[in-house]
Amino acid sequence: MPKLAQTLAALLPALFFAGMAEAEPVPAQITATAQALGQKALGDRWGYRFLEGLTSEIGQRLAGTEAEERAAQWAMAQLKQAGFENVHLESFPMTVWERGTESAAIVKPAPQRLVLTALGGSVATPPKGIEAEAVIFPTYAAMLDAPMGALKGKIAVVTQAMVRTPDGSGYGAANPIRRAGPSEAARRGAVAYLMRSLGTDSHRLAHTGALNYSEGVARIPAAALAAPDAEQLDRLAGKQPITIKLILTPTEHPGQSFTVSGDVTGRERPDEIVLIGAHLDSWDLATGAIDDGAGDAIVAGAARLIGMLPQHPKRTVRVALFGAEEMDYSGAAYAKAHGAEAANIVLAAESDFGARAVYAVQLPPGAAKSDFGAAAGRILTPLHALLSREPALRGGSDIEELAAMGVPVMSPRQNGLDYFDIHHTADDTFDKVDAAELSQNIAVWAGLAYLAAESDIDFRALPKAP
Amino acid sequence: MPKLAQTLAALLPALFFAGMAEAEPVPAQITATAQALGQKALGDRWGYRFLEGLTSEIGQRLAGTEAEERAAQWAMAQLKQAGFENVHLESFPMTVWERGTESAAIVKPAPQRLVLTALGGSVATPPKGIEAEAVIFPTYAAMLDAPMGALKGKIAVVTQAMVRTPDGSGYGAANPIRRAGPSEAARRGAVAYLMRSLGTDSHRLAHTGALNYSEGVARIPAAALAAPDAEQLDRLAGKQPITIKLILTPTEHPGQSFTVSGDVTGRERPDEIVLIGAHLDSWDLATGAIDDGAGDAIVAGAARLIGMLPQHPKRTVRVALFGAEEMDYSGAAYAKAHGAEAANIVLAAESDFGARAVYAVQLPPGAAKSDFGAAAGRILTPLHALLSREPALRGGSDIEELAAMGVPVMSPRQNGLDYFDIHHTADDTFDKVDAAELSQNIAVWAGLAYLAAESDIDFRALPKAP
Repeated sequence: MPKLAQTLAALLPALFFAGMAEAEPVPAQITATAQALGQKALGDRWGYRFLEGLTSEIGQRLAGTEAEERAAQWAMAQLKQAGFENVHLESFPMTVWERGTESAAIVKPAPQRLVLTALGGSVATPPKGIEAEAVIFPTYAAMLDAPMGALKGKIAVVTQAMVRTPDGSGYGAANPIRRAGPSEAARRGAVAYLMRSLGTDSHRLAHTGALNYSEGVARIPAAALAAPDAEQLDRLAGKQPITIKLILTPTEHPGQSFTVSGDVTGRERPDEIVLIGAHLDSWDLATGAIDDGAGDAIVAGAARLIGMLPQHPKRTVRVALFGAEEMDYSGAAYAKAHGAEAANIVLAAESDFGARAVYAVQLPPGAAKSDFGAAAGRILTPLHALLSREPALRGGSDIEELAAMGVPVMSPRQNGLDYFDIHHTADDTFDKVDAAELSQNIAVWAGLAYLAAESDIDFRALPKAP
Repeated sequence: MPKLAQTLAALLPALFFAGMAEAEPVPAQITATAQALGQKALGDRWGYRFLEGLTSEIGQRLAGTEAEERAAQWAMAQLKQAGFENVHLESFPMTVWERGTESAAIVKPAPQRLVLTALGGSVATPPKGIEAEAVIFPTYAAMLDAPMGALKGKIAVVTQAMVRTPDGSGYGAANPIRRAGPSEAARRGAVAYLMRSLGTDSHRLAHTGALNYSEGVARIPAAALAAPDAEQLDRLAGKQPITIKLILTPTEHPGQSFTVSGDVTGRERPDEIVLIGAHLDSWDLATGAIDDGAGDAIVAGAARLIGMLPQHPKRTVRVALFGAEEMDYSGAAYAKAHGAEAANIVLAAESDFGARAVYAVQLPPGAAKSDFGAAAGRILTPLHALLSREPALRGGSDIEELAAMGVPVMSPRQNGLDYFDIHHTADDTFDKVDAAELSQNIAVWAGLAYLAAESDIDFRALPKAP
């Protein structure tokens, strides 16, 4: 680029991004740098190696356990070694839930083992277990239709299958079965609650996940059945009475979790923050490769590449690896610690949907049709991703409380067709991650986080209507 | 068909099948009946329901246990109800092996659980387990290369992956790793033996299967790791020493197993037998849907359709549902009980490769190019299967001892590309079976078993060279 053009280009962003009126294009140099970052990311394997290390040298990282703390220390060392600044841990208190043993069997009409796993937060059964007649509901609605008291002394079983969808919306639709189901069963008198796993596979591997007990309702033990086991109960239902024996021995104790934080400090306005995060904790059943080691690798890998540029962007790119997301603590803990600086967070984004390629990116309302959006589109095209016409309205659970405070959010959308095959199961291991797809994610995040950090855009000030 | 032609057709088989010289075509009526049987089978769901009942009303059927006996009683009742004659159990003694508990973990360098399952026949560890340094061998050959004594006090681990092949030959090639590996490790001083499961999946579900200890070598505990866990050890190998803790508590006791036998009695030469079989026992980890409930459904379903014809074929079609195949007893037990009548078994065949469609059928040597082969081809074509040019030389494990006595065998070949994804795992459940593919198998077996039973062919007398 000729010198004069460079000078003009350097002046333009301030003119452009500050104003609402006649938008000026994003300087070509910024877009070109973001594009180059993306291309570099495609050929870089640091993120993949980070994920390999996290999942093999640490393994599972259940919230609040020593394993999660070991992971936080490990991640902190990785960020320091990769050149991040201001690397530190932020601790917060939590109630730690640990699984214990879990077993279940059909006692009658024909003895056979059932594969299941306790829901996160479930209370324990008595040590010798609960043995009771099972009432099988093919849908969650059918259980809700049962009158109060109708399930007295029974084990309620909901066998409704989650719908496979490319965008993961099947999970959201089925989520009340796990979140609210245990208390809804208890309201109707049930002594325990079983559900078909929220998942799209057909393996003898159950999907765990947190429940939310309602206040004022008896807390009953709750677990998720593997899909084939739920189908087995469907086949046996309605013939002879089914008796199930269930033993769950989870425990709870007070503890703490951590957010690992590291910066690529902005060269001009370091107090303005582009926050990119993922959660470091995992369920205990596996090594949390897609949920959410991949997200950690993506955001850390993207910020690392930005930090390796000849000069840092104007604003700070902050990486946050959140703790205890699976137990619902991460978002609130971060908002509590950083709510006061929310106004300085110009953009927040979270990667928590596995390692499949990004097909589209949602920007804050109004941004898609801005020149920022045009530049974002130019960065995404060579990465085989689209700029979405839908705005990002709320973040995932790590950042939704920030979003509620008015922090603009960005949301890369990934192919999620097979995400719920292994989500929250023992199968969530490193071998499931495709290195090239992981790199494509890093490329998208590096390009867009750089663009946001190098620009002066104020997403809050954009006109919301198209 | 005109009356004269019918009369001629009725006379022809004797002339044709008895002779070596000028082959006469198989009467069109026989072929037509066999073809009609095949078409009827495609629309029939009795076999699928049989499999559903076996796997849900009974469940797992570990050899020698009360569950296997319950399955035998259940199957006997099913055969009687379906109109089979001479339905009975034949018992034989065996050593019953039961799994007990099994658990393992990496103790160092980073504590994490390992998913594994004991090999059938494995001895137990001490009750508190074995904790020892692991030596990781990426191939079985590498372990065999280790000198005697080199593994003293160590846990030997072979992480070689089985090759996925459409014909299942990858299993045979890798079988010594499981069968002979434990004693080969013990010879070299190992205190326990772990191997990557013989399987083609990537799930946290280990594949069990029987081992064979060598005489005069210490019997050490042996188990198969799930594929992701073997890969985890591969990633950790060669960095820091790895310590593994292993607990296995299997037990053995004397017991008995059963062959369930039922006949479609031949109308002319009932002492000549077309024997079609499958094994009724399963591993304990699942409900044995593809291994080998499907085979039971296929052979029973095929013979049932033959028995429903207006007249039975000339020869007897005998269904044998073998016990204790997984523990290597079925073939020897049957040969011991029926060796004296081996000369009367005109053809034996076994279905033990899941429920995927048959793509080809191997006949005894010389049969493919005979008129019997030509008729078989006409029966197979509408079922989208081929007559194989390769002869069937030996049966599966239920009938190989009969084959060694000279009994001719037939071998339908099934698509086996995904068979070893779930073979011998907890995943071997009813939901994995496709009803239409199961019916195609039944169609093939019904057509060919009928053809063999209605004919006078003597496979033993066929010229062996083409």
